[in-house]
Amino acid sequence: MEFSSKILERAVNEVSQLPGIGKRTALRLVLHLLRQPKAQTQALTEALQTMRNDIKFCASCHNISDNTLCEICSANNRNSEIVCVVEDIRDVMAIENTSSFKGLYHVLGGKISPMDGIGPHDLNIETLVNKVKEGKIKELIFALSSTMEGDTTNFYIYKQIQDYNVVTSTIARGISVGDELEYADEITLGRSIVNRIPFETSLKS
Amino acid sequence: MEFSSKILERAVNEVSQLPGIGKRTALRLVLHLLRQPKAQTQALTEALQTMRNDIKFCASCHNISDNTLCEICSANNRNSEIVCVVEDIRDVMAIENTSSFKGLYHVLGGKISPMDGIGPHDLNIETLVNKVKEGKIKELIFALSSTMEGDTTNFYIYKQIQDYNVVTSTIARGISVGDELEYADEITLGRSIVNRIPFETSLKS
Repeated sequence: MEFSSKILERAVNEVSQLPGIGKRTALRLVLHLLRQPKAQTQALTEALQTMRNDIKFCASCHNISDNTLCEICSANNRNSEIVCVVEDIRDVMAIENTSSFKGLYHVLGGKISPMDGIGPHDLNIETLVNKVKEGKIKELIFALSSTMEGDTTNFYIYKQIQDYNVVTSTIARGISVGDELEYADEITLGRSIVNRIPFETSLKS
Repeated sequence: MEFSSKILERAVNEVSQLPGIGKRTALRLVLHLLRQPKAQTQALTEALQTMRNDIKFCASCHNISDNTLCEICSANNRNSEIVCVVEDIRDVMAIENTSSFKGLYHVLGGKISPMDGIGPHDLNIETLVNKVKEGKIKELIFALSSTMEGDTTNFYIYKQIQDYNVVTSTIARGISVGDELEYADEITLGRSIVNRIPFETSLKS
């Protein structure tokens, strides 16, 4: 792509570093900013700068937070003995949206993935294990995605805490609500039969 | 979407102002920046600021440029008597990529579109008409997209310059190279028959 301006080229190159944004999309975004008032670009760049420089992570659960402890960890109407282990803050947001969990979270910051060079020490696993060792947690719910990396991470954590007095569970895998059986993949359908639940229980949820 | 941090929320809101980027994508982009070194966010925001504040438009053709005259207008190996009228600088880049045009451009900055509140005076039409009046242009090639707005804009400009000594043409409409006839739309196929060209000419291009 040939640019008539070095300044434009630099802006397009920087924007196209973002994941999923190619040069053409970057050019479209940059030209859009150029047609908007200068204040919009100003607001965008300031928000990004502030975000990158000032954002904090909760000292307890590693969720993104404006304070030392995040809103969830510092709320007094939540059960701090049940902890849901997630990969990313987006998972916290997704679970919070369901309003069905009233415990705390622990954000690992990724999954163990030797292919990507991510080992256990790159993740927030030690602080989680310490919380278990200190007896602060009664139940740990693994809510990682069910991939090889997710399963590896679950198992790694499980091995570290299995000698302590803590109940572990994973979120249920099964057919999505509203999905038709014939389109479900075999593994999910198989698991949903093996892990079937009493009909009376299903009536309550 | 509930955010655990106001700083994060502000960054996501700003990014999601960009066209085609929703809140979820914005969150993904912002979290990506957070995982990268601070220098990347710094470089991105600086490039955008510089772009918005320092970019110039060519005084002659209104293309984006770092100088008063753009590289194309100031090149001395181009025929300044043939001018290709385009909507956007992306069209300039697209035509330049073909290496088949050695004249100059005139970037209108949009199309006449009463529905979007864009009239002739919002576009760079007057400077084009003046160039024609001054006798600087021998041929004007309309290369706007063939929509109602594009045709309206072509016709509006044509009416303003028809009494002056200038040849006008539009880019050829027809079946794309490599396309199969059976999938072409009727209007394009119809035009490609009406505007057929001598076979000997087609051998040369």
